[in-house]
Amino acid sequence: MYLQDSWYVAAWANEIADKPLGRIILGEPIVLLRDPNGVPHALEDRCCHRKVRLSGGKVIGDRLQCPYHGLEYNFDGACVRVPGQSRVPPAATIRKYAVVERWQLIWIWMGDPDKADETSIPNWWQMDHPEWRVPKGNLLHVSCNYELLIDNLLDLSHVTYVHASSIGTQEVGDVAASVSKISDGVRSTRWIFCCPPAPFHTKVAGITSPIDRWQISDAVVPCFVLLDLGAAPAGTGAEQGDRSKALEFRVFNAAVPETESTTHYFFAHARRFQLENPVVDKIFANDFVNVFLEDKAMLDEQQRMMDLDPGEFRIDINADAAGLQFRRLLKRRIESAPERTSVNS
Amino acid sequence: MYLQDSWYVAAWANEIADKPLGRIILGEPIVLLRDPNGVPHALEDRCCHRKVRLSGGKVIGDRLQCPYHGLEYNFDGACVRVPGQSRVPPAATIRKYAVVERWQLIWIWMGDPDKADETSIPNWWQMDHPEWRVPKGNLLHVSCNYELLIDNLLDLSHVTYVHASSIGTQEVGDVAASVSKISDGVRSTRWIFCCPPAPFHTKVAGITSPIDRWQISDAVVPCFVLLDLGAAPAGTGAEQGDRSKALEFRVFNAAVPETESTTHYFFAHARRFQLENPVVDKIFANDFVNVFLEDKAMLDEQQRMMDLDPGEFRIDINADAAGLQFRRLLKRRIESAPERTSVNS
Amino acid sequence: MYLQDSWYVAAWANEIADKPLGRIILGEPIVLLRDPNGVPHALEDRCCHRKVRLSGGKVIGDRLQCPYHGLEYNFDGACVRVPGQSRVPPAATIRKYAVVERWQLIWIWMGDPDKADETSIPNWWQMDHPEWRVPKGNLLHVSCNYELLIDNLLDLSHVTYVHASSIGTQEVGDVAASVSKISDGVRSTRWIFCCPPAPFHTKVAGITSPIDRWQISDAVVPCFVLLDLGAAPAGTGAEQGDRSKALEFRVFNAAVPETESTTHYFFAHARRFQLENPVVDKIFANDFVNVFLEDKAMLDEQQRMMDLDPGEFRIDINADAAGLQFRRLLKRRIESAPERTSVNS
Repeated sequence: MYLQDSWYVAAWANEIADKPLGRIILGEPIVLLRDPNGVPHALEDRCCHRKVRLSGGKVIGDRLQCPYHGLEYNFDGACVRVPGQSRVPPAATIRKYAVVERWQLIWIWMGDPDKADETSIPNWWQMDHPEWRVPKGNLLHVSCNYELLIDNLLDLSHVTYVHASSIGTQEVGDVAASVSKISDGVRSTRWIFCCPPAPFHTKVAGITSPIDRWQISDAVVPCFVLLDLGAAPAGTGAEQGDRSKALEFRVFNAAVPETESTTHYFFAHARRFQLENPVVDKIFANDFVNVFLEDKAMLDEQQRMMDLDPGEFRIDINADAAGLQFRRLLKRRIESAPERTSVNS
Repeated sequence: MYLQDSWYVAAWANEIADKPLGRIILGEPIVLLRDPNGVPHALEDRCCHRKVRLSGGKVIGDRLQCPYHGLEYNFDGACVRVPGQSRVPPAATIRKYAVVERWQLIWIWMGDPDKADETSIPNWWQMDHPEWRVPKGNLLHVSCNYELLIDNLLDLSHVTYVHASSIGTQEVGDVAASVSKISDGVRSTRWIFCCPPAPFHTKVAGITSPIDRWQISDAVVPCFVLLDLGAAPAGTGAEQGDRSKALEFRVFNAAVPETESTTHYFFAHARRFQLENPVVDKIFANDFVNVFLEDKAMLDEQQRMMDLDPGEFRIDINADAAGLQFRRLLKRRIESAPERTSVNS
Repeated sequence: MYLQDSWYVAAWANEIADKPLGRIILGEPIVLLRDPNGVPHALEDRCCHRKVRLSGGKVIGDRLQCPYHGLEYNFDGACVRVPGQSRVPPAATIRKYAVVERWQLIWIWMGDPDKADETSIPNWWQMDHPEWRVPKGNLLHVSCNYELLIDNLLDLSHVTYVHASSIGTQEVGDVAASVSKISDGVRSTRWIFCCPPAPFHTKVAGITSPIDRWQISDAVVPCFVLLDLGAAPAGTGAEQGDRSKALEFRVFNAAVPETESTTHYFFAHARRFQLENPVVDKIFANDFVNVFLEDKAMLDEQQRMMDLDPGEFRIDINADAAGLQFRRLLKRRIESAPERTSVNS
């Protein structure tokens, strides 16, 4: 079950160029393309005639042509040409999705396009702001249900064990996080005072003295998590709001369901320090992908083990509070959604 | 559901030589072999004892020996020796199939062998005629239901889109085909007058002037399609029957179900021009395999997309008329077939 | 269905060293490890919190640490530390299994640990005896139900056909075996008098004259088969008990179910001749693995063919008597077992 009436991330903006891009989202095959003016569009990636993927076809002017029998669709999803006949059957349509290009991403509204409201797209302004640096956007395919990935981002105690060689230290796992409600979501907050730096802090900024460190995860329905992460020299007032001496960055995460057991994981890092340093760019662009691959390994395995033994988790611990609260919120939203009306029938 | 009481193609004749050949047809494991006189036989490819494939065993004189415990079968499917015991259980039999070697192919009757009637094997006489040239027979494994392949062969409008670099031109897709009934099947006929040649025509015969072109597909239940294809200089009377100036060839197609979602695709080209030209031989032997691989890619994908969204097609177009008529005919034949009696019980 | 209250083989003793070893047995994920004193332990290989495998974690003193969130378990399966909180939920436990290290193997009791009785471990004393030589233990993964493997070991007539190049001769298949009851199992006995030696006998001992040869298979529930195999110069009284001139060896086999259709196959050879000959060591260590790979090929295929056509075997032959008797015995044992009570709930 998914929340249909919502924005999701469909692609990085630069993934769609000359050729259509096919991607399955919430179990639905979707073709993403740009018209001759560069405006992105999203349609059902399945010809209404014999079901082949239109993403294998061509954009010809303001039409998308099926690669099998040449049926042509306009970007509202109406078939406007059937080779060899003059009349086009009125039912020859495919589903159209509302899309918006923003924050270097293509956002897609998976419900009724008429309800699509751009103002409900998460405000990830740092992705496009000159005072923040985003080396590149990433996309991993993770073989787990998307809620497992959100759990992972709402309980960062795991960095102690999964990421010990980069961002983990013993203190992260030992200090409890607090949970609070935010608009459409849940926040998990952890502050660790006067603790040793992690290998990452030493590598990017030569830090060896004690730091005050924070991890603030804001998860917003259905699948977005904004991480506010940072470290400052111990006692310099970061918790009170003075981040002037801090290494501060954000991680933008979208855990987009491909199917019930696979997820498109979009993420990018925006930092507010050493903006022009190419060495630090590389650390964020490369090292952090390896960190996220450590998460992927754990998540893939978690799904495999759940498939072996379906059913609820057996034991919840304190660190699960944020994740459980988010799951309940998402479940309520899905259950209270108006029943979906089929667009094509 | 398959039409059991019918001939199918089991193999190219040259596929069966020294060793038995195992192949699944209509979901049934079948072992094909030649006896010491070279006569082909087909038996159930599963020992009645412990189910291993007999195609892994040996032909010893007039017997086939199981590779596991050495049980020996005669070519009527009766077990005639069980090592270590003198008595052979009377129920120790495997199914025998009627086979005929003809037109360079091994034909198998998948129903009751007593009903097998050689006269109902399709008459593909050009496969063995000195005025026609057949460079080689081909076999592709296609991951789709066999009816999708027959649809493909009955609606050649797709050559415009799928085979644009070889045999497709815009005109093929734009000109409608007519449909007529033939014995046990359906014919689709398309004539295109005074149109540009396709890249293929230029390549094999240097043609650059306008041509009259025809595509006549004869599909016969359950899975055979004979294509009569050709091109002649425009206005030289090919449609009226004068093919003396034409490049004319046939394609023999058998779409043999392996399972409900996989197909053994046997095909060969017989041409009536430039019989001794090895360059043209190569074009038919190699280039056309690539053309058929383009079909395979489309068919594999069609099946994948249908698995994602089971159910009927949503929109039929005019070009589907022949395929739909054939599907109805085949369905009637299957439904009106006498109920199959188990041969082994 | 498995016999739960029984010993199985979990691993070769030398498979468990510094790091935990994960293995699925009877469908249950199990982690095997040694404590700092070298004592082996077996626990459920699934954290009670979020289900990841503990075999990916670390042994830290007398605890096993989960690789995801750092939960720590003692070797009785009780969670004794949850990072970030002082109280450990009492239900935070995983299943503990009784294990014993014996005969170079780790034995595991898959039922209630309180019922584990070491005296019921098969007495494979030759594995550890100076008068017998065991070059190395082997483990193959076979894609079949474990009963097919036991059938294979109880009916050695197959060596004539499957192992013709090594240990098979025509006589083995042609001479019937006799079947008798033993404690908790079934014995199949075959004596072949004054027959030609197999290639193996010539290779290890230069034998070219006729031999008396025996194959005695003792299968014991649920999955153990001890083979007593040998050959002596014809007429030297081996059948009457004089094995002084014989080439005599044992094969210890454990067909441990991984799942209903896959098996961990543990086996080792112990011989009582040419103990110090490294050439003979190699024959047993290498050549016999190839022999067992021939069995594996046949067993994997048998399972595939049974999956294609589920249901009982159709024809039983005399040589199946021992296997069928063993299957009936095992079925009775499983059906008469007390209902299993869940250990964790």
